[in-house]
Amino acid sequence: MLGMAVLGCGRIGRLHAHNLARHAHVRLAAVYDLAPQAAAQCAAELGVRAAGSLEEIWADPAVHGVLIATSTDTHVALITAAVQAGKAVLCEKPVDLDLGRAQSCWREIAGAHPTVMLGFNRRFDPSFRALRERLHGGEIGRLELAIITSRDPQPPPAGYLRICGGLFRDMTIHDFDMARYLAGDIAAVQAVGANLVDPAIGALGDIDTCAITLRARSGALVQINNSRRSVYGYDQRLEVFGAGGMLQAGNRCATTVEASSAAHTAARDPVLDFFIERYTEAYRAELDAFVAAVEAGRPVSPDFADGVAALELAVAAGESLATGRTVEIGAAPR
Amino acid sequence: MLGMAVLGCGRIGRLHAHNLARHAHVRLAAVYDLAPQAAAQCAAELGVRAAGSLEEIWADPAVHGVLIATSTDTHVALITAAVQAGKAVLCEKPVDLDLGRAQSCWREIAGAHPTVMLGFNRRFDPSFRALRERLHGGEIGRLELAIITSRDPQPPPAGYLRICGGLFRDMTIHDFDMARYLAGDIAAVQAVGANLVDPAIGALGDIDTCAITLRARSGALVQINNSRRSVYGYDQRLEVFGAGGMLQAGNRCATTVEASSAAHTAARDPVLDFFIERYTEAYRAELDAFVAAVEAGRPVSPDFADGVAALELAVAAGESLATGRTVEIGAAPR
Amino acid sequence: MLGMAVLGCGRIGRLHAHNLARHAHVRLAAVYDLAPQAAAQCAAELGVRAAGSLEEIWADPAVHGVLIATSTDTHVALITAAVQAGKAVLCEKPVDLDLGRAQSCWREIAGAHPTVMLGFNRRFDPSFRALRERLHGGEIGRLELAIITSRDPQPPPAGYLRICGGLFRDMTIHDFDMARYLAGDIAAVQAVGANLVDPAIGALGDIDTCAITLRARSGALVQINNSRRSVYGYDQRLEVFGAGGMLQAGNRCATTVEASSAAHTAARDPVLDFFIERYTEAYRAELDAFVAAVEAGRPVSPDFADGVAALELAVAAGESLATGRTVEIGAAPR
Amino acid sequence: MLGMAVLGCGRIGRLHAHNLARHAHVRLAAVYDLAPQAAAQCAAELGVRAAGSLEEIWADPAVHGVLIATSTDTHVALITAAVQAGKAVLCEKPVDLDLGRAQSCWREIAGAHPTVMLGFNRRFDPSFRALRERLHGGEIGRLELAIITSRDPQPPPAGYLRICGGLFRDMTIHDFDMARYLAGDIAAVQAVGANLVDPAIGALGDIDTCAITLRARSGALVQINNSRRSVYGYDQRLEVFGAGGMLQAGNRCATTVEASSAAHTAARDPVLDFFIERYTEAYRAELDAFVAAVEAGRPVSPDFADGVAALELAVAAGESLATGRTVEIGAAPR
Repeated sequence: MLGMAVLGCGRIGRLHAHNLARHAHVRLAAVYDLAPQAAAQCAAELGVRAAGSLEEIWADPAVHGVLIATSTDTHVALITAAVQAGKAVLCEKPVDLDLGRAQSCWREIAGAHPTVMLGFNRRFDPSFRALRERLHGGEIGRLELAIITSRDPQPPPAGYLRICGGLFRDMTIHDFDMARYLAGDIAAVQAVGANLVDPAIGALGDIDTCAITLRARSGALVQINNSRRSVYGYDQRLEVFGAGGMLQAGNRCATTVEASSAAHTAARDPVLDFFIERYTEAYRAELDAFVAAVEAGRPVSPDFADGVAALELAVAAGESLATGRTVEIGAAPR
Repeated sequence: MLGMAVLGCGRIGRLHAHNLARHAHVRLAAVYDLAPQAAAQCAAELGVRAAGSLEEIWADPAVHGVLIATSTDTHVALITAAVQAGKAVLCEKPVDLDLGRAQSCWREIAGAHPTVMLGFNRRFDPSFRALRERLHGGEIGRLELAIITSRDPQPPPAGYLRICGGLFRDMTIHDFDMARYLAGDIAAVQAVGANLVDPAIGALGDIDTCAITLRARSGALVQINNSRRSVYGYDQRLEVFGAGGMLQAGNRCATTVEASSAAHTAARDPVLDFFIERYTEAYRAELDAFVAAVEAGRPVSPDFADGVAALELAVAAGESLATGRTVEIGAAPR
Repeated sequence: MLGMAVLGCGRIGRLHAHNLARHAHVRLAAVYDLAPQAAAQCAAELGVRAAGSLEEIWADPAVHGVLIATSTDTHVALITAAVQAGKAVLCEKPVDLDLGRAQSCWREIAGAHPTVMLGFNRRFDPSFRALRERLHGGEIGRLELAIITSRDPQPPPAGYLRICGGLFRDMTIHDFDMARYLAGDIAAVQAVGANLVDPAIGALGDIDTCAITLRARSGALVQINNSRRSVYGYDQRLEVFGAGGMLQAGNRCATTVEASSAAHTAARDPVLDFFIERYTEAYRAELDAFVAAVEAGRPVSPDFADGVAALELAVAAGESLATGRTVEIGAAPR
Repeated sequence: MLGMAVLGCGRIGRLHAHNLARHAHVRLAAVYDLAPQAAAQCAAELGVRAAGSLEEIWADPAVHGVLIATSTDTHVALITAAVQAGKAVLCEKPVDLDLGRAQSCWREIAGAHPTVMLGFNRRFDPSFRALRERLHGGEIGRLELAIITSRDPQPPPAGYLRICGGLFRDMTIHDFDMARYLAGDIAAVQAVGANLVDPAIGALGDIDTCAITLRARSGALVQINNSRRSVYGYDQRLEVFGAGGMLQAGNRCATTVEASSAAHTAARDPVLDFFIERYTEAYRAELDAFVAAVEAGRPVSPDFADGVAALELAVAAGESLATGRTVEIGAAPR
């Protein structure tokens, strides 16, 4: 049994805590939150201990790993401390909003050959994973074109928008990682963005709609489109194309019911909304992968470098948006 | 060039007349209708002659074939006269409402080895035809189960309902023919019916909704369902099932557009409504098949015997509905 | 917390035991099987007690309810004993293969106003349930036609076929219950069957393919089709039709991936196979409904009478198959 | 009746000639081709005159309009001559490969207020047209994102590749026009391209795969993806997205048949291949629109300026591909 602690008892932290509490190979040792009440409530729900301090967790030999689901600005410090305490880490994305800080974090901890997995949950969605396995298995030949569609149901609250680092670092970062998951390392980034959903987002200097083109080192082209608002639900789709054909992974609805009436035929439900519903199985599979890797002493994937690489693409996209130029990505010095 | 005349200038007659007028291998020689004005108008539209009498058509050596689209009660007399005049015949379904009259018509004309094709247009629908070819080509093995769904957009006018011979002979007859097209000769019929759409139909002693099971001589089971009213359009579907899998042929919509909104996702248009739109290609392919067979001196299909066989199933369904018993069909003495 | 015991540790019993062990409102007190080893293994998996005898369970005041997942021939005796011991019961379908025995069981226990729920799991499938709620909510008006498609991936083992009571009592019974769930009480049954899948089934005097028509008291017509073998997976679909349109609930695939190649486009995965995968959520929701009803002292649904009613339809279908006649169902003396 | 002549009797010219010959409001007066035999054969098929020279057509007062389907390098001269002869013109895309020549052509003829329609056939596809009408009708609010997918079944012959002007001017030009049709005038272009399909295309200095982003003056973002090869058929799809939802127009298959087997479920046919099959209805509707506009003295659409605007986008895409920069489009001086 792997002893785990959860840091951060917000929505996503609680989700992970519940999954860990039910995991056959895990003993959830403690939960922690800066706000003691949040930790206490989550602990009560699950019948586990609310740690009084981080030091308590670092010092606990029964905690082999931590899941970091705190706010982004704390990730680097928590990853560093956890690694120094000898814990394996599963950290929610992104590593940090600042590429330099993320890179220097790695320089600091790399010597310890730490186990740090990044929470790019979409890699573990059964449909996306099956699509990728079939792609990499050669079913449609070498990848030539990929289209990644990702549209949130609605913008996050204003408070979050202000600190989230902008569309590319907060939302598109998932799609940058997905592009790398499908197409491998990226060589160049072109980004166009717009403020079409909510003027309040523009007032923050941010965008809410974007269209991005990536060129992979393999030669494949990847198109990403994002919107902060989708009235029909959380729109998450992939399409990959090659010499042998095309694979598409679509949205899931709550039921299979289709309705035909005088107005239309074969109408489906709105799609699953939001990430907790859409990626229920992905979050579980992500934990399974982390736990299995730690237990077996195998490398985790996606790892810290994947987190940095996705952040690098987000930064490049910001530069492309600002300059109108294609931004080349240096070859990864991995 | 095959010289053709069209008898009956109602909706379906005019459709055929227009198709014949444009057919590369046909010269439309004349149109005829009991109501001279109807014939005159149709003739004017197409720039052809309106025949003043049937005799004029029987006597015209430039007319090699006739298309009979008059009211059902005239079919037997017109087929007989046309055959006696040496014309090839393409006659709209059904042969007659009375099985005995249909059979005696055949006895009268059979000696002439006439060319009489029945207008079961659905056999020529590209999707239904492709499904049948794949079925008979062995793609799913021997047929075990078939489901035929056929629902009209709305009931015909009261005047027509009174003379149409009832649901089975007027509407289900297409499905009886489709069952034979897919499964071959039928051995037994079970029918259940109900008056659910319009009490006026019940007042005529007729039904507007039915569920029928056929057992084919091959052993396959066929289910038919009918309704006289479908608000989402003219619902025409096939499903066939065997040891190797399933083939389904669905409805067609006017466009491929799918709409996603807060209310639903992937909503299609209502389906094509009504038979003239739904079976546009089928009507053309039916004429092609007739013309090609006559030109080549090959037998037509579906032929008079197919028309009688479908009518026999309609009569048997009526008997089953009345008695609650399975009605066995004698082996066809063909 | 509701104390529960599971009787029968075969495939379906173990499934229920696992679900009960994880249920937030349940304490799984014990498991039992005629074969002590089966019980011991299941108990070990779940960290619960393997009961040495049924008496131990009847006598245990911490057991408030039992889930009966033993072979069908033991259901009546176990239901009776459980009710006499004051336990609530959730029993797998069917009540019994013999309608008389099922009815006399009820006469024996009815006085105790027992809580006996029947395990018609499909009623709890989220898609089927949503379809029914939308139907009963009036979305398409009064039900006129329903089509229930139910095809197993492959026939059960020969040993099971010999004791299962035949297609109607073993397999179609789910569809009879579904017909009642959608259309209410049934007034008449017509059945046609065939032995098309495996001659060994015919050699047992059984059929493996059927087409059934039901007439509901409401006037609605219901068509059921079954096969014991479906190469593309466990085929479970519903279609309901009324004056306002149509609702359909289709199959589910393991992923949403669709493949396009030179051979075909938009090809989906085979459908989920078999009931444990297809009805994962249904089995959980079924337990939820049972537990909630028992906790609240509310009536369970589907109840013993529903089990008897479905069995009555299976018996009637057998009679219709044998006689070729429509079999009328007496009004339920409930 | 509008008197028409067809210039160019290649594949697309013959298609138009056949459609014009059957058009109720058109008299096809003549066909012409540089190769007299091609003209003679087409004329014989349709029972019309093969013009011996262009002068014969310009001089013929019974020819009110010409359809230009010759090779691209002749378009400007033929448009100019036709306009000077007082004919209405429907010219296949593109106007010319050289933007300057196209613009100076217009300066030369503009004074005559000529009727020149450009053959962007996709605007007349029933599904694309319906999608656009629903978009512009407000069904999903203001356009925010559009995705245009366009993939040819296979590359054109080497001889054509050498003279076609490159991917953007030959193939993507349809998508540039579609972008304008959906989103209005375009403000900026970003293009990425690759040679992934056939090295022979790269050897010509051309690309066969591209990913393009357009920013419309309205603020909407448009993504285009192209490939010169698609094994599942001619892939032509649109997706538009706004505050109220999404509309998608997909591919069409030859039949509605879906196949389920041990390998997959619901597999459709390959999609219609190639443009003559895919856009059969579009070509007819395009002629209808041209004829109706000329008869009514109304402006045609798309017009010469639309042809120039699409070419301008193709040129801009080439510049963006070469420089890696976003290319701004000057406001149209219309």
